[in-house]
Amino acid sequence: MKLSQLIALILSLTFGADAFAALAQAPAECEQWGVYELQFQGPISGNPFSDHLVSARFTQAGQTTIVRGFYDGDGKYLIRFMPSQPGEWKFTTHSSDAELDAHAGQFVVKPPSAGNHGLVHVANMFHFAYADGTPYKPLGTTCYAWSSQPAELQEQTLKTLASAPFNKLRMCVFPKRYDWNKNEPPSYAFQGTPPNKWDFTRFNPTFFRALETQIVRLGKLGIEVDLILLHPYDEGHWGFDRMPDEVDDRYLQYLVSRLAAYRNVWWSMANEWDFMTEKQPEDWDRMIRVVHDADPYGHLLSIHNGKLLYNHTNPLITHASIQNGSAAEEAGRAVLYRDVYNKPIVLDEVKYEGDIPSRWGQLSAEEMVHRCWESVIAGCYVTHGECFLSPDDVLWWAKGGVLKGQSPARLAFLRDVLATAPNLEPIDKWQYANMAGQPAQYYLIYFGAQSPKQWEFALPRYELADGMKFKVELLDTWNMTTTPIEGVVTVKNFSQYLFKDAANKPIPLPGKPWQAIRITRIQD
Amino acid sequence: MKLSQLIALILSLTFGADAFAALAQAPAECEQWGVYELQFQGPISGNPFSDHLVSARFTQAGQTTIVRGFYDGDGKYLIRFMPSQPGEWKFTTHSSDAELDAHAGQFVVKPPSAGNHGLVHVANMFHFAYADGTPYKPLGTTCYAWSSQPAELQEQTLKTLASAPFNKLRMCVFPKRYDWNKNEPPSYAFQGTPPNKWDFTRFNPTFFRALETQIVRLGKLGIEVDLILLHPYDEGHWGFDRMPDEVDDRYLQYLVSRLAAYRNVWWSMANEWDFMTEKQPEDWDRMIRVVHDADPYGHLLSIHNGKLLYNHTNPLITHASIQNGSAAEEAGRAVLYRDVYNKPIVLDEVKYEGDIPSRWGQLSAEEMVHRCWESVIAGCYVTHGECFLSPDDVLWWAKGGVLKGQSPARLAFLRDVLATAPNLEPIDKWQYANMAGQPAQYYLIYFGAQSPKQWEFALPRYELADGMKFKVELLDTWNMTTTPIEGVVTVKNFSQYLFKDAANKPIPLPGKPWQAIRITRIQD
Repeated sequence: MKLSQLIALILSLTFGADAFAALAQAPAECEQWGVYELQFQGPISGNPFSDHLVSARFTQAGQTTIVRGFYDGDGKYLIRFMPSQPGEWKFTTHSSDAELDAHAGQFVVKPPSAGNHGLVHVANMFHFAYADGTPYKPLGTTCYAWSSQPAELQEQTLKTLASAPFNKLRMCVFPKRYDWNKNEPPSYAFQGTPPNKWDFTRFNPTFFRALETQIVRLGKLGIEVDLILLHPYDEGHWGFDRMPDEVDDRYLQYLVSRLAAYRNVWWSMANEWDFMTEKQPEDWDRMIRVVHDADPYGHLLSIHNGKLLYNHTNPLITHASIQNGSAAEEAGRAVLYRDVYNKPIVLDEVKYEGDIPSRWGQLSAEEMVHRCWESVIAGCYVTHGECFLSPDDVLWWAKGGVLKGQSPARLAFLRDVLATAPNLEPIDKWQYANMAGQPAQYYLIYFGAQSPKQWEFALPRYELADGMKFKVELLDTWNMTTTPIEGVVTVKNFSQYLFKDAANKPIPLPGKPWQAIRITRIQD
Repeated sequence: MKLSQLIALILSLTFGADAFAALAQAPAECEQWGVYELQFQGPISGNPFSDHLVSARFTQAGQTTIVRGFYDGDGKYLIRFMPSQPGEWKFTTHSSDAELDAHAGQFVVKPPSAGNHGLVHVANMFHFAYADGTPYKPLGTTCYAWSSQPAELQEQTLKTLASAPFNKLRMCVFPKRYDWNKNEPPSYAFQGTPPNKWDFTRFNPTFFRALETQIVRLGKLGIEVDLILLHPYDEGHWGFDRMPDEVDDRYLQYLVSRLAAYRNVWWSMANEWDFMTEKQPEDWDRMIRVVHDADPYGHLLSIHNGKLLYNHTNPLITHASIQNGSAAEEAGRAVLYRDVYNKPIVLDEVKYEGDIPSRWGQLSAEEMVHRCWESVIAGCYVTHGECFLSPDDVLWWAKGGVLKGQSPARLAFLRDVLATAPNLEPIDKWQYANMAGQPAQYYLIYFGAQSPKQWEFALPRYELADGMKFKVELLDTWNMTTTPIEGVVTVKNFSQYLFKDAANKPIPLPGKPWQAIRITRIQD
């Protein structure tokens, strides 16, 4: 007899046969930061989405997490839980419905499997790390409505992502109505008749199960899902952009109840919140609170702007998700957001590589890569996007499919640079906009469109001492080459502000754009 | 018999001879936004600064302002009031001391005299205006400790300011201890023994009267006083940077009671608040609240940073006073602050013209002027400063004296440009970092250090229509010349985003740095 069956038996002796029948599934084990799922058969009277609520209390060694369940159709109620610690956990359910109430049990949480590092959180003010402490450095891409496309196209998108350099994906829950996006999705979040006769009191579990499947598959690819909960590109066609307040709140609670146990989910309240003209700023304050309060784990939470920034100083917002292509265009701009927010800055829209007539989707690959480099040199993070016209209207930015641009290969190079870098901070923020790193340890200097023939080795004084030694490499960010510069640089104090190469030997550069220098301390 | 004497007589009949004796001064009239001052003889027992409080209620046609009085020494209590409307006003005093309580009277407020436009407030989100609606466009300078210098030097500073282009002055209440600043001031804010044995419970009215005199004199020069209430450059020598909380609060209340009736005063909570390491961020939140609550008029209120920005989203802060030289160095930077704060941005420290060894005080005049232009093109405002070494240690930035730099003359030119300009806003904020103005009315395009030979006439589409006509002028921001470009430009729609010159004629430029183009709509 399995432990879960034993528990069910004990429960049936305690609470009678109904309870035994109701607890249809209670696995005996789960991995840390995995999804532990309880399944119940329960009442189908009235509206099961709202009339029969269930929650569970999960406890281990003094820590308690209360998790809301949700109705999954066909008389099934689910409670999903993400355990934060290994060891033995217990649960007890609570419901005003006798069938769902007072189920109890226990299960064992094993260490995480390979590649499972847990939930991503904010680390060192401007950066991110997984729950196990592994640094996480977002380098995302954008496929707003890929999960609303036909199954074959979704498969192709996943295949593309499997070999792409991206570890975060901006995607919407709801389908998208816009240029090149006129198709209906395979299913809808609400029961009713497409395109816009919905019973907003009843969700469509088929829709959410499909979404969950894709979230899990992205997770297996190491991709964090920056899930956009609402967006304006509906324009009343389906009406998901203009639902009443109580529908928004119920939808958000249902979604969070279903998804919060998935460790690779981030909450992005909106794409271009200010373009959703039916909503007021107070509505966003309220909905942010709803999502925050419904989430027992503290997933990353932000809100992405059109023309107007949301006030990211709101303490419920974990990081600033910002659209502003200009901020990534030149050095010294995006860094200002850090000073203002004291939170990680993710430049989630800096215009896209592509060839569409709109100016936000016609960057050259060089410019796309350049903006990604400027973003990281500013101590921020960045998201890629791609908009190449296609006879079948499949543009990566909205529908996924295949990547056609030349930037992703270069962003793989950037990803590899970030992988061996410490957290990048401005070294001397008001002086050297093109330098980031950690003082006396590591420096990246990026020259952008400039084409210098040499660079005089000079570093801001912070934490430097005479005699420290550094190796220097030339990074060609476009041609993806790393060339060691011969010799070792020993620094000496030069002035009130600078240390220089004691040998006074300039670093040669190739006199073309998109070059960077990486300087790494050699420990004695 | 004068009206005031009549009032005093009525009061004496109503309240007895004591009241008549106490109300030593109650003028019969005052100008709008002037200082109406009531003077009382009152108790000198105990500590008159804290033991005998008095306030007055000023009323006119349903509006009421309650104003705190203050002790001015020698048994004198003053209540200062700035009437916001012309007409007949009444007052009644309130105090738990019988001598100070229940004095009443009335007076007539006449229209403001020439040059009196009232208090400056925030207008159109990012800009300022006087109470009478006249736009106010700050272009300030910095003399931190000029009012702590010997009398002759103070006279010289005022004389310099009288012919300088500046309409705002950043200055400290307290003296300054720093390089080139080792002298003691003529008087101190507290009673006691210099340099640091103070009775923090007793103010020194002589000190404050001297400060007020200079504020009034600056007002007569059309200069707003950006008064810095606390600053770190004391380092315990006097100890005004590390007073206990209750002393800070009492000092702020006393200061505001004395100064709030002066229309040209702004409250700057601190210079470089984060360098005052004895204080915590919560202290600033508290002190901002103290100043705000003590001020019946809503003077402009901000706080200036060292390395760490204060959270200017605090609703009590009227505008962001920012130190960041880098933000003014290149186009496209400072404009980001606007998006974040939705308040006026005043770049109150962008480094200084000068020749001191510190890198914040060695800008060329060209660079100082350039930074001022970049600031206004970003839709922000800016403050000048100057640090030239001098055998007598009189550097303008701290002590005043005479201006030695070459930037002030050029800033007079900028001031004149601003005087005829509408409020400058980014025209197309993510596309043209070097263009500001008002769509279809007025455009300023600034080329900075670039030296183009021509500019292709092209404007973002906003509010433009085919056939609109514009005149074009070349502004040489360094040589201070305005050169009309021959002919009139008629625009026509060129693309989804741009209108161009229908005649397709480029604007000739002189191929040298520091040039700007001014484009002004010609109404048919």
